[in-house]
Amino acid sequence: MDSSTLSEKLNNTLSSLRYGENPPELYEPIRYIMALGGKRIRPLLALLAANMYKDDVENLLLPAAAVEVFHNFTLLHDDIMDKAPLRRGQQTVHEKWNANTAILSGDVMLVRAYELLLGIEPAILPKVLQLFSKAAAEVCEGQQLDMNFEQRQQVSIPEYIHMITLKTAVLLGFSLEMGALLQGAPEADSAHLQAFGINIGIAFQLRDDLLDVYGDKAKFGKQVGGDILSDKKTFLMLTALEQADESQLQSIKAWRHKTDESITAEKVKAVTEVYDQLQIKQQTEQQIEVYFQKAMQHLDAVEVAENQKTDLRNLALQLMEREA
Amino acid sequence: MDSSTLSEKLNNTLSSLRYGENPPELYEPIRYIMALGGKRIRPLLALLAANMYKDDVENLLLPAAAVEVFHNFTLLHDDIMDKAPLRRGQQTVHEKWNANTAILSGDVMLVRAYELLLGIEPAILPKVLQLFSKAAAEVCEGQQLDMNFEQRQQVSIPEYIHMITLKTAVLLGFSLEMGALLQGAPEADSAHLQAFGINIGIAFQLRDDLLDVYGDKAKFGKQVGGDILSDKKTFLMLTALEQADESQLQSIKAWRHKTDESITAEKVKAVTEVYDQLQIKQQTEQQIEVYFQKAMQHLDAVEVAENQKTDLRNLALQLMEREA
Repeated sequence: MDSSTLSEKLNNTLSSLRYGENPPELYEPIRYIMALGGKRIRPLLALLAANMYKDDVENLLLPAAAVEVFHNFTLLHDDIMDKAPLRRGQQTVHEKWNANTAILSGDVMLVRAYELLLGIEPAILPKVLQLFSKAAAEVCEGQQLDMNFEQRQQVSIPEYIHMITLKTAVLLGFSLEMGALLQGAPEADSAHLQAFGINIGIAFQLRDDLLDVYGDKAKFGKQVGGDILSDKKTFLMLTALEQADESQLQSIKAWRHKTDESITAEKVKAVTEVYDQLQIKQQTEQQIEVYFQKAMQHLDAVEVAENQKTDLRNLALQLMEREA
Repeated sequence: MDSSTLSEKLNNTLSSLRYGENPPELYEPIRYIMALGGKRIRPLLALLAANMYKDDVENLLLPAAAVEVFHNFTLLHDDIMDKAPLRRGQQTVHEKWNANTAILSGDVMLVRAYELLLGIEPAILPKVLQLFSKAAAEVCEGQQLDMNFEQRQQVSIPEYIHMITLKTAVLLGFSLEMGALLQGAPEADSAHLQAFGINIGIAFQLRDDLLDVYGDKAKFGKQVGGDILSDKKTFLMLTALEQADESQLQSIKAWRHKTDESITAEKVKAVTEVYDQLQIKQQTEQQIEVYFQKAMQHLDAVEVAENQKTDLRNLALQLMEREA
């Protein structure tokens, strides 16, 4: 089945999900956030992995949707914690309604995510739920680390990679692993696909960090330099802090905690200049390439015919080359 | 197995649970709230139901613990929403740490609750998870209704009973049903035990409402009249509002939104006087009796020997006669 057919089936499944009706205050925010769309990368990865083994992926549609519902639950709660006003260009749930609603609607989404997995054949259900629960807890651990890092003076690059592995990559890894497991793929294959997902996930997040500074404003769709403005400890910033000389360090530190709109352009320009001096863009691209190649090695090791891997390879490439 | 042995086994299981270690900011609040104790009614009900069918309840210990972890997750999130400073006489998690930590630690608890159910034998796991998920979503619906009611002028008694059924009673019902199901009890029995739990749950909540006003201060352990002071729409208040004459209505309304500590005693006294005039205490006791009797009818209908029901009957009685 080609990638666009899978995508269409997935979108149909997601639009047909019913979360509940009463009280409307609980369920309306769920419909709202799920309707905001997004790239649907996680469920698509699950379907593409599954499709490598069988052309029929009907058994994957609800489990794949479960991962997307779970992902949106984490966005809902993360946005409260990060006090984010916007999500995909629209008001966040806690802004449009309030924090209590965002907490509670998120809670129900987590429950619904589990429910969507319950149609999995009983023989393999406990294993999938175990893996899903492990990934789910790790995503929370990643979010906690992310919050911890914002409070800390120093964060090392390995610590940062560990954080984004938990917060972002493990769920991509799980999606692929589940796709393989549900089609009866060999253990070794599902392990390789999980590792492929983890490495793609890390590369994906590094690409996100990069686009925030070096993205094309027109294509990026959000403010370029937002991470710089909010002093976020991204891969770029942490690398710069490690490599900066005294005067570059002073230049970065002088701008810290200055978040006023009037100085936005000036701050972004000044920090970007330091990044440029240190060739942070090139270094980040190199790291992305390292994780991308690791991912590809794991995909190479999967024991299916090469032409069965094309869609997954293409999606990975798209994610690395994306401009937004 | 006698009730105190079950209780001991349960407490040992709960103390031996491991939620995770890193980052400590995520897991410490979970250990904290779980260590605050509480009556452990829900898991105890599960064990007592199970024990009616088999003397060996080892297979129930982790699933029973799951329900207690889930219940404490709801307390954690409810306390944020209700801005509650204290839980079981100790600081709430969002007070001791902060709201973000309380949100995220709660999320992990919900995941851990599901994980604790995964040891259930595969043949019955999907059904138990389906019932658990249904109950879990209903608890959230109940909390949303509870919040809605605080914003509304009028709430009817049936609406109130519906709300506490969702918020409190369904989880008691699920606990008992699960206890029966896991021991292979007949469908009809598990349905009766669930209905027993729902009715006990409603009676339990009404007893809570009653104790808040008419509890013995020394035994109750928290401020008598707290619900009156915070204008909470309890069964007592809603019944009074329905039956009050014009002057009684004025008396209650005059005190609304006055929450200052200096007038606590006066406000509680004034509203209690109206309750006394309307015999709200007696009416509430009658309603508790109605639900208690319904519960007993369902217990009577369970097809096990009468002496096997003694512990469950005694626990139900204790819950109705409790002073705190």
